[in-house]
Amino acid sequence: MAFFSNLDSNSDITDITFNDRPRLGPMDKASQEIMRGKSSFSIAEREIMAAYVSGLNACSFCHGSHKAVAEQFGVPPTVIEQLVEDIDSSPVSDKLKPIFHYLKKLTITPSKLVESDVKKVKEAGWSEEALHEAILVGCLFNFYNRLLDGHGVKGNNAIYQFAGEHLSKNGYGVPWFIGFIKNMIKKSKLKKLKALENQVRVN
Amino acid sequence: MAFFSNLDSNSDITDITFNDRPRLGPMDKASQEIMRGKSSFSIAEREIMAAYVSGLNACSFCHGSHKAVAEQFGVPPTVIEQLVEDIDSSPVSDKLKPIFHYLKKLTITPSKLVESDVKKVKEAGWSEEALHEAILVGCLFNFYNRLLDGHGVKGNNAIYQFAGEHLSKNGYGVPWFIGFIKNMIKKSKLKKLKALENQVRVN
Repeated sequence: MAFFSNLDSNSDITDITFNDRPRLGPMDKASQEIMRGKSSFSIAEREIMAAYVSGLNACSFCHGSHKAVAEQFGVPPTVIEQLVEDIDSSPVSDKLKPIFHYLKKLTITPSKLVESDVKKVKEAGWSEEALHEAILVGCLFNFYNRLLDGHGVKGNNAIYQFAGEHLSKNGYGVPWFIGFIKNMIKKSKLKKLKALENQVRVN
Repeated sequence: MAFFSNLDSNSDITDITFNDRPRLGPMDKASQEIMRGKSSFSIAEREIMAAYVSGLNACSFCHGSHKAVAEQFGVPPTVIEQLVEDIDSSPVSDKLKPIFHYLKKLTITPSKLVESDVKKVKEAGWSEEALHEAILVGCLFNFYNRLLDGHGVKGNNAIYQFAGEHLSKNGYGVPWFIGFIKNMIKKSKLKKLKALENQVRVN
């Protein structure tokens, strides 16, 4: 259950970020650039990284919703579960595996990263720029995982689906006037959530 | 030793952030707002939080430099060491202790935070807004700790001192044209570092 009086079981990340534009507005900009801007990694690959890091941190909200985003880009959610369980036997390409090993250490024991971890990434054919880009995805989701769990926002299947559809369609950018229309957005969200919940119940 | 070919033993965070303005420029803005903007916590308290979280993550660069910033605001660095060792016996006020317990769980096991952790913070007299502000400091340094260790930037005493003086004087905001003058800044920094190193050697 969410920890703050303005949050409830239907809350998602926007109920935190839309309420604090001065501090969290710039984070939306950074996220859009890191997750949707020019990169050595496809959008699907970056969303798998986001869901993977969130899985390692056991952040239900980010893990659930970024699995749903990855699914919208054609990635079966089982791939991410397999990655969290064991990178080496998971169905991601051999080229990507050292990147996921790097993200694992970056998330769990960042201070223990060493030159040989970088060497493995380079030997798989990645540039320094690519490694920098993967690190940024890792840093970002270590931020967001704590933002969500820090506020006690856990989500549920309908919310993950809703967030997944929204993020795959609209990305992370948020217009400056979002503060003024957030109640309107909330109403339309609750309506969509209701429909998604019924859909989940029927299936 | 730093992992990237544009980084060396004299590198600090700006050698990463000045080179990637599209992705990291917005992070400077968020940091300035979180660490220097309006808050329930003084600047010194927020800098202690930053140094504390970085100590938990064993991030030498952020721990060293934010201890130095806190020192510029009158906090003896031993306070932060005592906090990292044991919050309850450390010399921070009883009112602040539940905030540091919250930050500890947020950093190490964020998904395990529960209502009773929030209750303790509120019972100490903090508002929900204050807890949100502390969470943001925690999220931010979980980002930066991984940014520094992900790139292998560890720093040294002269660099922590340099960063501490810079951050206490200028804050986290960075002008838009920083990309154009970063080589000039680097030259002046190396000169100051040389002087600081000599000073450390003499003392």
